[in-house]
Amino acid sequence: MEKRNELYAGKAKSVFTTDNPDRFVLVFRDDTSAFDGEKKEQLNRKGMVNNRFNAFVMEKLEAAGVPTHFDQLLSPTESLVRKLEMIPVECVVRNVSAGSLCRRLGVEEGQDLNPPTYELFLKNDELHDPMVNESLAVTFGWANQDELDEMKRLTYEVNSVLKTLFADAGMLLVDYKLEFGRCEGRIVLGDEFSPDGCRIWDRETRKKMDKDRFRQGLGDVIETYEEVGRRLGIHFDD
Amino acid sequence: MEKRNELYAGKAKSVFTTDNPDRFVLVFRDDTSAFDGEKKEQLNRKGMVNNRFNAFVMEKLEAAGVPTHFDQLLSPTESLVRKLEMIPVECVVRNVSAGSLCRRLGVEEGQDLNPPTYELFLKNDELHDPMVNESLAVTFGWANQDELDEMKRLTYEVNSVLKTLFADAGMLLVDYKLEFGRCEGRIVLGDEFSPDGCRIWDRETRKKMDKDRFRQGLGDVIETYEEVGRRLGIHFDD
Ligand SMILES: Nc1ncnc2c1ncn2[C@@H]1O[C@H](COP(=O)(O)OP(=O)(O)O)[C@@H](O)[C@H]1O
Ligand SMILES: Nc1ncnc2c1ncn2[C@@H]1O[C@H](COP(=O)(O)OP(=O)(O)O)[C@@H](O)[C@H]1O
Ligand SMILES: [Mg+2]
Ligand SMILES: [Mg+2]
Repeated sequence: MEKRNELYAGKAKSVFTTDNPDRFVLVFRDDTSAFDGEKKEQLNRKGMVNNRFNAFVMEKLEAAGVPTHFDQLLSPTESLVRKLEMIPVECVVRNVSAGSLCRRLGVEEGQDLNPPTYELFLKNDELHDPMVNESLAVTFGWANQDELDEMKRLTYEVNSVLKTLFADAGMLLVDYKLEFGRCEGRIVLGDEFSPDGCRIWDRETRKKMDKDRFRQGLGDVIETYEEVGRRLGIHFDD
Repeated sequence: MEKRNELYAGKAKSVFTTDNPDRFVLVFRDDTSAFDGEKKEQLNRKGMVNNRFNAFVMEKLEAAGVPTHFDQLLSPTESLVRKLEMIPVECVVRNVSAGSLCRRLGVEEGQDLNPPTYELFLKNDELHDPMVNESLAVTFGWANQDELDEMKRLTYEVNSVLKTLFADAGMLLVDYKLEFGRCEGRIVLGDEFSPDGCRIWDRETRKKMDKDRFRQGLGDVIETYEEVGRRLGIHFDD
C-alpha cells in the first residue's frame, strides 16, 4: 500500500489517497481545535493517542456488527480506511446533558437523559454546525430517508456497545458524535471515535476526561485521553 | 357563556376562563411583537383582522378533517375555543425557504423546498425558541411519540388544505407554524392561524403579505393582512 496525494486537510486529520482506489489513509495530527476552529493548539502525542484509541473502538464496533471504515493501523499516527462518500451530517447521542444542549435548552449539566437523545447537526464550520433534522436532510439532499434510518439505528447501536465498554472501565459515556458515509450501497461509520468527539466522565468523581479539558482549559488533556485509553486496555507505547 | 378571569396574557392574545370549564375565550389584541418580543407595537385593527382570519381558516381546516379548538366567534376580537393542555412545541412546515431557515443554513430566500420541510421549535422566549426535535421532545416530556406523530401528520394535512386555498386566491403559502394541545386524549390544533404566524407571498409579484412586513418595516401591515383575507373571501367589516 502506497500513500499518494493529500486530498483534504481537516481540523485534526488529513486524508490521503493510496494506490488502492477503495482505500484512504487518515493521518491523525496533533492539531486540536474547538469553537468551530476559533481555539487552536498543537497537543503533543494527540495524533498517536487518537489514532490508537480510534482503532481500538472501531474494532470493538465492527466486532459488534457495526460496519466501519477501519481497515488497519499503518503507523502510530496513520490508519488505512475504506474510502467513503461522506454524508455532511453529524449524528449525536446523549446519555447525560452537557455542552450545547445545556446552553440551547437551559438545562443543567449532568442530568440523565432517558431515553438517550438523538440530534443531527450539519457539518459546516462557517454556519457553526447548525442543528438540522431528517426532514431538512432529505429536502436538501444530504441523505435519503433509508440512509437516515440506518444512521440513527447504527448511532444507537454504538451507544449500547460503548456505554457498557466505558462503564466496565469505571467511566460514563456522556455523549458522542458520529459521521457516516456511503460505501457500495451501505451506510458505514467513518471518521473517528476518540475523546475529541465525545464526552467521557469518571463514573465516581465525574472528572471530565475528554476534549472539554481543552475547551475549558482544564489542563492535562492528552494525559487524560491516555488514562481513558489505559482503563479500556489500550497500549500507547511503541 | 360568561367570560371570567384572565388566565394568561401572551404577546398577542389573552386567554380567559368561562363559566364552561371546557371553554376558554381568546381575545385577539392589537399588540404586535417580533424578535422574541424585542420589537413591539400596537397595530390598529390587528386583533379584529386576526380573529376573523383565524376563524375562517380554522373552519376550513375543521371541515377538511383537522380537529381544531375553534368553537365560535364571540365578538370582532374574541373567539370561544376548546380548552387545551398546550404542548410547548411549535410545528413548522416550509414550502419555500425564508426567515430563520435561510440564516441558519445559509440558503437563499425563495427556493422551493421539495418535499416541504418540517421542524420543531421549543416555545420559550427566553431561550429564543430553539430548534428541537422529536427525540428531545420525548426525553424532556413535552410530548410522547404518538402525539408527535399525530402533530406531524396534522401539520402536513394543514399544508395540503391551505396551499390550495391560498393558491386559488393568487397567493403562495411560504411557511407557517402551528401549536397543538391535548383535549380528551386527542391532539387538537390550537392557538391561531393568521398572517402573524405564517408567510404568504403574492404568487406573481412575490410581495410579502404577512408579519415580515412588520419585522422588516415594510409598512401597510394590517392593510395587507386584510387584502389577504379579502382574497380568501373573508369579510372584515361589521
Ligand atoms: N473513510 C472516509 N472516507 C472519506 N472521508 C472521510 C473518511 N473518514 C473521515 N473522512 C473525512 O475526513 C475528514 C477528517 O478530518 P477532520 O480533521 O476530522 O476534518 P474536519 O475538520 O472536516 O472535521 C473529515 O472531513 C471527515 O468527514
Ligand atoms: N385552546 C387553547 N387552550 C389553552 N391555551 C391556548 C389555546 N390556544 C392557544 N393557547 C395559548 O394561549 C396563548 C395565546 O396567546 P399568545 O399571545 O399567542 O401567547 P404567546 O406570547 O405565549 O405566544 C399561547 O400561549 C397559546 O399557547
Ligand atoms: Mg472532524
Ligand atoms: Mg403566540
